[in-house]
Amino acid sequence: MSAGEVDWSLYLVTDRAMLGSRPLEKVVAAAVEGGVGAVQLREKELCTREFIAEARRLRQILKPLGVPLIVNDRVDVALAADADGVHIGQNDMPYADARRLLGPDALIGVSVESLEQIEELEDQELAYLALSPVYATPTKTDTITQWGTEGVRAARERTRRRLIGIGGLDRETAEAPLRNGLDGIAVVSAICRAADPRAAADELAAVIREARR
Amino acid sequence: MSAGEVDWSLYLVTDRAMLGSRPLEKVVAAAVEGGVGAVQLREKELCTREFIAEARRLRQILKPLGVPLIVNDRVDVALAADADGVHIGQNDMPYADARRLLGPDALIGVSVESLEQIEELEDQELAYLALSPVYATPTKTDTITQWGTEGVRAARERTRRRLIGIGGLDRETAEAPLRNGLDGIAVVSAICRAADPRAAADELAAVIREARR
Repeated sequence: MSAGEVDWSLYLVTDRAMLGSRPLEKVVAAAVEGGVGAVQLREKELCTREFIAEARRLRQILKPLGVPLIVNDRVDVALAADADGVHIGQNDMPYADARRLLGPDALIGVSVESLEQIEELEDQELAYLALSPVYATPTKTDTITQWGTEGVRAARERTRRRLIGIGGLDRETAEAPLRNGLDGIAVVSAICRAADPRAAADELAAVIREARR
Repeated sequence: MSAGEVDWSLYLVTDRAMLGSRPLEKVVAAAVEGGVGAVQLREKELCTREFIAEARRLRQILKPLGVPLIVNDRVDVALAADADGVHIGQNDMPYADARRLLGPDALIGVSVESLEQIEELEDQELAYLALSPVYATPTKTDTITQWGTEGVRAARERTRRRLIGIGGLDRETAEAPLRNGLDGIAVVSAICRAADPRAAADELAAVIREARR
């Protein structure tokens, strides 16, 4: 699938530690029912073999629904599980290497933490740029600044690319950055920690629709 | 290079934590001067971008010397850095996936912890089987048993493949398992912790020659 065929407006990033005893597959399936249009599998603790097995299980759920599976950081896992693409940060594989290994059709999104990084990527074929973090969040402890609403607006003025915001976004905080230029929001805890992930996604989708009026 | 062109008799597995302030490249270069014939880059803490950068630096040193660079676990790093192959354990990418992604010429070695695992791999194109651990060692804390000299002999009777031993092998302990069927030894601390890695490799090479008489 091409990046333009995907609904990136509500993008789930998984965090197994937030799920309690609930299986990841169930939470993801419920979130997609509620309106999630893309899923990023993020695993920092699993061994490679289990990471691949998990990616394959998610792919089996998502493929028939036309929802892309994006793997965080690990190009090897994406290749082995035939995922739709990868999300890479500034400490992950450089974009050019990821593109070379994954081929022209892979969906590659990149986290950016500054306007300079947006400019460095201007010539690349990206599915999206992820402004990270929009608001400082305990999920990511290795980032020191935040974009904020003003930063989102500045990024929007700088590039015509698809801009996804991540970090600290929930049904209370998402509206302002959406109105300032985000094309979509990526959420972790707003869905992974929710008692009812389907309802949480549904509510977030409503916030997104409202912000776009 | 093909697996048959490599001298696997003394195989260095890196461990950055053991190097103190010494750069990895210097220790590796010295070890190769001393007689190491293959190098496995093992990194469990580095981010992907630094892991790839490190692999590229080592490849630049090793390629002109005809010494293969094998990457532990990470097929993505091996592909990005154009390493000669990967070493995979039982928690890493399954062999069939690694072979598919790396292609027919890659050197793929697999750690085995039992005779059953040796049999499961009987039909695969492996550069080597690594009996792990030959002797229990603090470097690997996720293994509970050891092959011992008797286990090496049993493995030797079971397969004609190239057998590398790893775990607890140094100039005192290497001779017995070598006499019982190992084709080579993989060492971590015996070289990485040595004050003089070149001399340490040289001494180990002498032990190997002696055991083969």
